[in-house]
Amino acid sequence: MQTDITGRLLICCPDRPGIVAGVSRFLYACGANILDASQHSTDPKEGLFFMRMVFHLENTALTQEQLEKDFQEKVAAPLEMEWQINYTSHRKKMAIMVSKYDHCLMELLLRWRSGELPVDIPLVISNHEDLRELTEDFGIPFHYLPVNPANKAQREQEAIQLIRDSQSDFIVLARYMQILSHNFVSEFPGKIINIHHSFLPAFAGANPYKNAYTRGVKLIGATAHYVTDDLDEGPIIDQDVARVSHKHAVNDLVMLGRDIERQVLTRAVVAHIEDRVIVHGNKTIVF
Amino acid sequence: MQTDITGRLLICCPDRPGIVAGVSRFLYACGANILDASQHSTDPKEGLFFMRMVFHLENTALTQEQLEKDFQEKVAAPLEMEWQINYTSHRKKMAIMVSKYDHCLMELLLRWRSGELPVDIPLVISNHEDLRELTEDFGIPFHYLPVNPANKAQREQEAIQLIRDSQSDFIVLARYMQILSHNFVSEFPGKIINIHHSFLPAFAGANPYKNAYTRGVKLIGATAHYVTDDLDEGPIIDQDVARVSHKHAVNDLVMLGRDIERQVLTRAVVAHIEDRVIVHGNKTIVF
Amino acid sequence: MQTDITGRLLICCPDRPGIVAGVSRFLYACGANILDASQHSTDPKEGLFFMRMVFHLENTALTQEQLEKDFQEKVAAPLEMEWQINYTSHRKKMAIMVSKYDHCLMELLLRWRSGELPVDIPLVISNHEDLRELTEDFGIPFHYLPVNPANKAQREQEAIQLIRDSQSDFIVLARYMQILSHNFVSEFPGKIINIHHSFLPAFAGANPYKNAYTRGVKLIGATAHYVTDDLDEGPIIDQDVARVSHKHAVNDLVMLGRDIERQVLTRAVVAHIEDRVIVHGNKTIVF
Amino acid sequence: MQTDITGRLLICCPDRPGIVAGVSRFLYACGANILDASQHSTDPKEGLFFMRMVFHLENTALTQEQLEKDFQEKVAAPLEMEWQINYTSHRKKMAIMVSKYDHCLMELLLRWRSGELPVDIPLVISNHEDLRELTEDFGIPFHYLPVNPANKAQREQEAIQLIRDSQSDFIVLARYMQILSHNFVSEFPGKIINIHHSFLPAFAGANPYKNAYTRGVKLIGATAHYVTDDLDEGPIIDQDVARVSHKHAVNDLVMLGRDIERQVLTRAVVAHIEDRVIVHGNKTIVF
Repeated sequence: MQTDITGRLLICCPDRPGIVAGVSRFLYACGANILDASQHSTDPKEGLFFMRMVFHLENTALTQEQLEKDFQEKVAAPLEMEWQINYTSHRKKMAIMVSKYDHCLMELLLRWRSGELPVDIPLVISNHEDLRELTEDFGIPFHYLPVNPANKAQREQEAIQLIRDSQSDFIVLARYMQILSHNFVSEFPGKIINIHHSFLPAFAGANPYKNAYTRGVKLIGATAHYVTDDLDEGPIIDQDVARVSHKHAVNDLVMLGRDIERQVLTRAVVAHIEDRVIVHGNKTIVF
Repeated sequence: MQTDITGRLLICCPDRPGIVAGVSRFLYACGANILDASQHSTDPKEGLFFMRMVFHLENTALTQEQLEKDFQEKVAAPLEMEWQINYTSHRKKMAIMVSKYDHCLMELLLRWRSGELPVDIPLVISNHEDLRELTEDFGIPFHYLPVNPANKAQREQEAIQLIRDSQSDFIVLARYMQILSHNFVSEFPGKIINIHHSFLPAFAGANPYKNAYTRGVKLIGATAHYVTDDLDEGPIIDQDVARVSHKHAVNDLVMLGRDIERQVLTRAVVAHIEDRVIVHGNKTIVF
Repeated sequence: MQTDITGRLLICCPDRPGIVAGVSRFLYACGANILDASQHSTDPKEGLFFMRMVFHLENTALTQEQLEKDFQEKVAAPLEMEWQINYTSHRKKMAIMVSKYDHCLMELLLRWRSGELPVDIPLVISNHEDLRELTEDFGIPFHYLPVNPANKAQREQEAIQLIRDSQSDFIVLARYMQILSHNFVSEFPGKIINIHHSFLPAFAGANPYKNAYTRGVKLIGATAHYVTDDLDEGPIIDQDVARVSHKHAVNDLVMLGRDIERQVLTRAVVAHIEDRVIVHGNKTIVF
Repeated sequence: MQTDITGRLLICCPDRPGIVAGVSRFLYACGANILDASQHSTDPKEGLFFMRMVFHLENTALTQEQLEKDFQEKVAAPLEMEWQINYTSHRKKMAIMVSKYDHCLMELLLRWRSGELPVDIPLVISNHEDLRELTEDFGIPFHYLPVNPANKAQREQEAIQLIRDSQSDFIVLARYMQILSHNFVSEFPGKIINIHHSFLPAFAGANPYKNAYTRGVKLIGATAHYVTDDLDEGPIIDQDVARVSHKHAVNDLVMLGRDIERQVLTRAVVAHIEDRVIVHGNKTIVF
């Protein structure tokens, strides 16, 4: 049986001559055309090489399994690569967690409906009922999991189960105002994207707009990052800022901030969907 | 004797009806034309009113002293104002302190020579000899005051004396890499502008570019602020950022940062020269 | 009967001493507090003075009519002012005209629903049926007025009648893809805001994204302006740009451009609602 | 004899499978390490492939001549490539042409002196004497070639001869206010970088700041582009903008514009020096 394969190969390996040659020769031998390629070498002391390569095989008899098996043997093993291939034929599934603010959720849903976010959204989970109608208007199941100190661990377990059952590939915290436990985070390592409403590392933690107001900064920001056990300390995917002045009260900062949040979150989600992000230590490479 | 007066009036007083009317009626009665006016009210709880008003008296018999005396009696006292008038006839004197980096100094000197900075620069003080030639090429006296732990207090005293003797109105730390003592700072309250090479409050202290690199931020910044006793905690005048990526090594951040630093510092200095900045608590109002 | 009045006074008059004094003395005598004030003088050759002043009268026996009559007699007539006062008690009515693209309409409706746009939206008019459901979901009447060369004049007349009947204060063309006739434009002078999907004056007319792609620009933009008889030549209210590169195909520009369009249009609409915009010749003063 | 080679390979060829593989296999066989690679495919209708590859050969017995000969035979010919290799061992020579404005020249000279621009600057040519001292202070020969309608052709010929004699690789028009003839331009195709003081294609031609002021735009810009026979129509390398308002007179636009000009020009010059720019038709690919 003949088929088409479009894959996005992400690799990390010790830097040395022959990597690009090895990979591209392999793909060429398979009959693949390289549609896009980006690479990054860390400084010589660390000596790591990262690459994202998008390739296309037309009308091939190869299966994904065979392709990956061959790649592992012929290229990855000799060059000591960590690698993965994501196929465009697999439409990613994105779970969303929210609380009461609707701007980030709305932005994601609108872009999803317009086709800008090529994902399925199997579910939205919230600790409040407020955004049920909005979510269901888009035809997406909404799960209400109210959280209090007593039931938090259990609710997280329920959320984990819902997300697992939905086969979601990643989770977006679209202003979800609960701190996730180590248990939750370790369940989905490198798979949870959060939008924090400040220019990290400035104003980590609660009430960033209020703190920005108090400090009298002249720019406010937002940061999209992967969630790790250290609150607001995970690898940053994208950030942006907007200019403010003494005229802006805290509420104005909140309003202006909403626009930055939704833009930055969208850009981060798009980068994640397109497999442009490689996490390396506590930093990201965004090709 | 008849003369022209152009003044910039800055006021702060309890917010209540009649302030603009009182001030503008007074100026009108003096024969002044109001060239520009900006105002700001803090939230009702604090209840303060700030205003900057630029006025022009043509061919007046009034002296500055008489004008100020009348203003105090007729307007400022009844309305419980703190106020000052700066006259464009007084060209401000700007002292500069630097260490080894030349980009901020060069920017200030070039803009000064082109007429963009309407100030006199009576002296440049440095703890290194490196920038002597550059400074003297612009015809500005350069004072070398090398600092070590043993002589720091004495050197600061010498700097204070030099600045006092020069009758400087304000001091710009154009990447001066020494922390000023409480003694120095209290000598020139609200008169020292520093450029810090990060987006404060992120990366306060030493090595901000290195720390920004380590954290993996996607924007780097610079902050111009008034110097207070708390290092990097003074009232912020201006800030800006530039986009960076995983491709940028620490040295690249340093290079990119130079451009932000010199722009932000210039904007802050211009605002200070034009009497657009009012410090209120630990924040600024920049009209 | 006692009431509160918050007004936004916009004035234009020949520049001379005493304007601020005259206006603020008048308002003070009425018992008004000045909440905000901005002014602008054109160059001396033209010699015009513009001002926006927001004032508040608490618990006053004055009616708007009496206030305006007094102002005209005591201040405006002697100073040869053109002026108007808009009262915050009058919630503006905003008519929207669209074609098929939903992003600008959606942005306006979302911000309206969230309270960011303090207006009523009495109707949406479109030459296509596509956005009926979206509009009606927000509880807003949708009028379908399909246009072809034969019926265009008549359809415009129907639109004029609908807008008049709705008592709309201004009209937003949220990507309405028909050129309005002189007849329509002259019916609502200075009351029609259009969003053009380029950085005017570059790429006026049709297909700006395609033309931007062909020219190979490195930034694309959007422009919000008041509509005049000269297509894409009316007074500009706001503009913004986004960075693009050789990687972006026309469709990418369209997608990126959507975000700029909706931001710029929103800012222009907010400025108009808050009476911050004065049209002067073919330019705007945006306080 | 053994030596090191660092080369930047730029290629353009019909898009097809095997290009990356072919090039990287060749380089690997030579013993080269690929330091950086970027590629771009135009839309399938045009079907072109562009690539920039930076490679390093350590301690090789190969000469540049042999390397290029082999590459042509084994890779370029079969794949119908247009290509060139620039070697970092060849420090580019940059000629500068100016008139009276010093800000772009100063920016280039400062960055050159600080090492940010890894070029030699063999000469500055000007139609005015104004910038002689500035230029010579940096130790660079200054040639005064005053132009009038009668001698323009001859002066251009003299400039061509000076630039040829200096073996300059490219020419930067750092606000050179003369239109170059077809004769001059065709002498250095794709080798002349101009900074135009507007956001092209808006405000092409003379007096862009005045025209921007008259039109009432809310952003002003600058554009760096390669010079072609069509004035201000050549391939754009970089652009940027700054926000302006009704408060800015023409002179303010000129002053603000200077900062954009020098930044945009610098970025374009750096991209050119690093062989990041490929001209394709009337557009650029900037890797």
